[in-house]
Amino acid sequence: MKIARLLLLAICCSSTTMMNGMADEGMWLFTDLPLDYFKKTYGFVPDEKWSEHLMKSSVRFNVGGSASFISSTGLVLTNHHVGSDTLYKLSTPERNILEVGFLAKTPAEELKAPDLELNQLVNIRDVTAEVKGAVAEGLTTEQAVAARRAVIAKIEKSALDESGLRSDVVTLYGGGRYHLYQYKKYTDVRLVWAPETAIAFFGGDADNFEYPRYCLDACIFRVYENDKPAKIEHFLKWSANGASEKELVFVSGNPGRTSRIFTMDALKFQRDVRLPFLLNALRRQEILLQQYGLRGTENARRAREDLFSVQNSRKARLGMIGGLQDPQILAEKVRAEKELLAAISADPKLKPLASAWDTIAETTRKRAEIQGKGITLTSELFSKALTLVQMAEEDQKPAGERLPEYAEAGRESLLQQLYSEAPIYADLDQVLLADSISRTLEFRGFDDDYCQKILDGKNPADRAAELIGGTKLASVEFRKSLAAGGIKAIQESTDPLIALARLVDPEIRRFRKITDQLDEQDKQAYARIAEAKFATQGTSTYPDATFTLRLAFGLVTGYEQNGESIAALTNLGGAFKHEADHQGQTDYKLPESWKKAKESLNPNTPFNFVSTADIIGGNSGSPVVNRNLELVGLIFDGNMHSLTSDFIYSDKQSRSVSVHSSAIREALQVVYGADHIVKELGQ
Amino acid sequence: MKIARLLLLAICCSSTTMMNGMADEGMWLFTDLPLDYFKKTYGFVPDEKWSEHLMKSSVRFNVGGSASFISSTGLVLTNHHVGSDTLYKLSTPERNILEVGFLAKTPAEELKAPDLELNQLVNIRDVTAEVKGAVAEGLTTEQAVAARRAVIAKIEKSALDESGLRSDVVTLYGGGRYHLYQYKKYTDVRLVWAPETAIAFFGGDADNFEYPRYCLDACIFRVYENDKPAKIEHFLKWSANGASEKELVFVSGNPGRTSRIFTMDALKFQRDVRLPFLLNALRRQEILLQQYGLRGTENARRAREDLFSVQNSRKARLGMIGGLQDPQILAEKVRAEKELLAAISADPKLKPLASAWDTIAETTRKRAEIQGKGITLTSELFSKALTLVQMAEEDQKPAGERLPEYAEAGRESLLQQLYSEAPIYADLDQVLLADSISRTLEFRGFDDDYCQKILDGKNPADRAAELIGGTKLASVEFRKSLAAGGIKAIQESTDPLIALARLVDPEIRRFRKITDQLDEQDKQAYARIAEAKFATQGTSTYPDATFTLRLAFGLVTGYEQNGESIAALTNLGGAFKHEADHQGQTDYKLPESWKKAKESLNPNTPFNFVSTADIIGGNSGSPVVNRNLELVGLIFDGNMHSLTSDFIYSDKQSRSVSVHSSAIREALQVVYGADHIVKELGQ
Repeated sequence: MKIARLLLLAICCSSTTMMNGMADEGMWLFTDLPLDYFKKTYGFVPDEKWSEHLMKSSVRFNVGGSASFISSTGLVLTNHHVGSDTLYKLSTPERNILEVGFLAKTPAEELKAPDLELNQLVNIRDVTAEVKGAVAEGLTTEQAVAARRAVIAKIEKSALDESGLRSDVVTLYGGGRYHLYQYKKYTDVRLVWAPETAIAFFGGDADNFEYPRYCLDACIFRVYENDKPAKIEHFLKWSANGASEKELVFVSGNPGRTSRIFTMDALKFQRDVRLPFLLNALRRQEILLQQYGLRGTENARRAREDLFSVQNSRKARLGMIGGLQDPQILAEKVRAEKELLAAISADPKLKPLASAWDTIAETTRKRAEIQGKGITLTSELFSKALTLVQMAEEDQKPAGERLPEYAEAGRESLLQQLYSEAPIYADLDQVLLADSISRTLEFRGFDDDYCQKILDGKNPADRAAELIGGTKLASVEFRKSLAAGGIKAIQESTDPLIALARLVDPEIRRFRKITDQLDEQDKQAYARIAEAKFATQGTSTYPDATFTLRLAFGLVTGYEQNGESIAALTNLGGAFKHEADHQGQTDYKLPESWKKAKESLNPNTPFNFVSTADIIGGNSGSPVVNRNLELVGLIFDGNMHSLTSDFIYSDKQSRSVSVHSSAIREALQVVYGADHIVKELGQ
Repeated sequence: MKIARLLLLAICCSSTTMMNGMADEGMWLFTDLPLDYFKKTYGFVPDEKWSEHLMKSSVRFNVGGSASFISSTGLVLTNHHVGSDTLYKLSTPERNILEVGFLAKTPAEELKAPDLELNQLVNIRDVTAEVKGAVAEGLTTEQAVAARRAVIAKIEKSALDESGLRSDVVTLYGGGRYHLYQYKKYTDVRLVWAPETAIAFFGGDADNFEYPRYCLDACIFRVYENDKPAKIEHFLKWSANGASEKELVFVSGNPGRTSRIFTMDALKFQRDVRLPFLLNALRRQEILLQQYGLRGTENARRAREDLFSVQNSRKARLGMIGGLQDPQILAEKVRAEKELLAAISADPKLKPLASAWDTIAETTRKRAEIQGKGITLTSELFSKALTLVQMAEEDQKPAGERLPEYAEAGRESLLQQLYSEAPIYADLDQVLLADSISRTLEFRGFDDDYCQKILDGKNPADRAAELIGGTKLASVEFRKSLAAGGIKAIQESTDPLIALARLVDPEIRRFRKITDQLDEQDKQAYARIAEAKFATQGTSTYPDATFTLRLAFGLVTGYEQNGESIAALTNLGGAFKHEADHQGQTDYKLPESWKKAKESLNPNTPFNFVSTADIIGGNSGSPVVNRNLELVGLIFDGNMHSLTSDFIYSDKQSRSVSVHSSAIREALQVVYGADHIVKELGQ
């Protein structure tokens, strides 16, 4: 269940941004790296082979994170908290892998993930002309949405047919450019090693987004092809010494979403409407999951993965709103916007672009009006039902007219999720569904027609019990047979969740249409704003993040906080001290394995470090490399000052936080007795 | 800090209700007991001495709970969770009384509470004519508020002067009647015994509002006069065997607020606006306190009392909204309202009363508009500042024109709170203040004038740090000297929190005026609705709860839940089984003292029991007595089905939950070695 990640990716629509050549800012396209800046500032000139190797060594976790190949034998390194979705799904009441960790002594012991899809970006093509050409001037917003959808579906489908590769058209600079990204897909992914949550997330929610840290937030998977470890050409070699103080490092990963191009109106909407709304939703979910978890240790296990995810989102969003409520940060955004608007109105050719700001003001006003009014039922089983219902309906339409998530190009990935054998806990699902029905009543009003139909004369708790108790959707076979039966099977199904999905689907679609049109208006407006920025500030820019591969860079360096100097690196010895400093507190207990290994561990081994690289959610699991493309670290967090980097970057205090490569190697050898893995690293 | 209790008491304005002679419903006035019902249903005819003795044996805790005298030597029995505010204030990092409990072996060891005020109701006088006479027909709402305020202040002041007793005019039946309640005050209150939180709140938040239960939610204080144990004439004798299955029992306590008279519009406002708003606020506070508590064990200790309180409120309100979102419960309310309106419109004399419903529709509409728009800064220190500023201003006015909380009659109680020596934790206060500034920005809008003035160019966290870091209000001496300096000292003070309170006070007053007027309109409307009900349904009624003394009654009896039969009584042996059933879970660990005493405890001793008595928040700590006025139990909770009894009573599943008197006695003797207290009981 990706409650939090859904929220994460929903926070803003795609958009554009650019930098004014200051500091280590930017999440750069691999096709458009800031080579001049590298040369001027760091005397470093990477060639094409350099970037190709790094690009192809990078891996995307479609559950919402990043990773890298670290051996020719298919080993993939990512964060424990990126792998945790799979660790959770592989766990049972008897064997809680998420909690106690895992180590495969031989490939035969590796555990197959039920529904993981890893992507390796292998090809990028500019398709701007094709997309823009298909969306004629003077179309209504509705027509523009349809035309754009159709041409993108066509490009993706023919690219897939030609290459067999996963093919996604990516909207960059909010509609200024369109790129076709092609990925090699790996769907047979197996777990090799994961440490205990106690060390992966040492310090828990309290230490999250803080620094100094002492976390082994890492785990290792292996990709397979034809039931054998895949042979990997591009992978990162393990650095002998890892990252060191003041070193220039690079981060290759998939930042999720940023909103640096946002106008002040859009930021105010985030500050005053969207973030408070999300925070209320997150806190509600957090308490609900806590309460469910209090009922017993097995309940706690079932709720844990969602709970971590929600807590992480809550803390991140609290940081964002903190930044947006800071008059000094806002003043800088206001100043920059004024300057840009002044430059536009001074140039008769650019002047018409100013209307983009009015468009955004209008779309945000409309967004505020409908905030929370849609029907969103939080339930794994209901979401399967809705997918089945919508897929059957969409498949009736010509390919170009379908909702993008049901397009032909992505069907394989969609079905992998739909038919996942990962366990669904009906009792937890019921609690979440009951609460989300109650929430829907609050937002739409109890007397709303749809609400009354959803309730069907019962209170939310009883109704959820009836729905979850009555559905057969927990069975993968049942889902497959419904899908195979097409629209007829769906229409005739008496499964209560299918019936509910049929019932609410028209309203969900009506709502979707409204937001699609608002997105389209925003897209056109931000494309104009991007144009204005290109014209007045030059073209050396990077687009806002879109959960596609980007290169960030920066120095390994500490920072000042409340007059205190925070060192860039921590070490293994510090972890034991950190435990002692927080005696008796939850989440500060090192696992037994570490206590046993204490005497054998070199306390001076670097553990975590910070750098100025510009990252955001989605970058979790990104490899950190040096100039020679050796792996020196593994991104896993940002400090609290970085939480405003969704909309503004500053290298003053904002830092990305990584696990040091040496700590991973040392732990594998000394704590986990995984010499066989260490031997494979970089080979 | 009474965050939750403030919310508890703020949830609805005073109002009226009545019963139709069904079941064990009602929170009856001691001056108007349902004697006919007692006689007819139970063949029981209490006389005036009976009710006088019970009334005078009952005690009110002004922090928001109930209690009783249980010895001639001043012993007072209440809940651990009612005493916990004091237990918290008496605790230090080194000696966490709230957590580990307390036992005074001699009176000399008893610990004086820093700011407790206990009230014993000794006299009731009907002052309806006087109050109604002072509020002439045809006044504007504003004039009516002022006139009513003036006459009430006058009555209270002269009653205080005559008797020396605390004198409160209470609005009953939403304005249908006014009673003057006079209390003997006890302000020297000392802690005698409290068990560990682990057994007082065994099962924690998970078991709260559930049944079966196993909680020793009890503690004992002693009231003093002239530095000696007070001599108490009316107290409850301890029953030899305590409550038994199917026994008729009585509950004498101070239910806080109910809203059974509410119109459907008022209930919808609760369901759609007020409760969702409160729940968001509570969840926000809950997460904030949890986060603060994660920083260390001392932080956890500091946050604990507030956290319990917030969690309790959150769970209670969730139950309320659950009831209001139940179509079947609502249908019953709708039916009753339609019936009443039909009866009114059928009678030309009553017909004009129907306009009361329109008034409520209008006031709730206005309430929805301003919901959350006021300035509410959550900080102990700020609230002291605001009290000082407002008190100095109010004292400039003639007595009858002051805000009620600054009237002469209540000044002593006000100052006891203002000058309390209870510790204030600046770091916690700062976190709460920062969050409430942030919340105020969200609700009023960042650009609001007052918000900008509150921020003073900083973000909420920095501004809170500046305010709390700069104030001297933590010092009681400083508060006293400011108060002594009167309006001049306040106006000239450069203390940052005093300055802030001066700044926002006009807006707080403007807002207060709006809600006072809405309350007045409601008062007049509900008085008309009460009139309509009297006229159509008879006069055997009880008014909605007003945190004043009431008598409830019912049978000790179990109930059905999900087809299961829940027995009325649990026993001490069950507590050990309950622990075993929840191995490894937080809040299910019995304290060491109980484990040591296990073999000596009689496992068959009744521990907790449920009855049909009609109670609500505020009844916590109420004595449960039998016909002979012997103490048989101690109210401490309601089950989850009782959570809707704020607006509707049903004896089908709704139950009040009590500690059995025998469990308290057994634990005092066997677990805590407190024979000296047991000897005093009932003597």
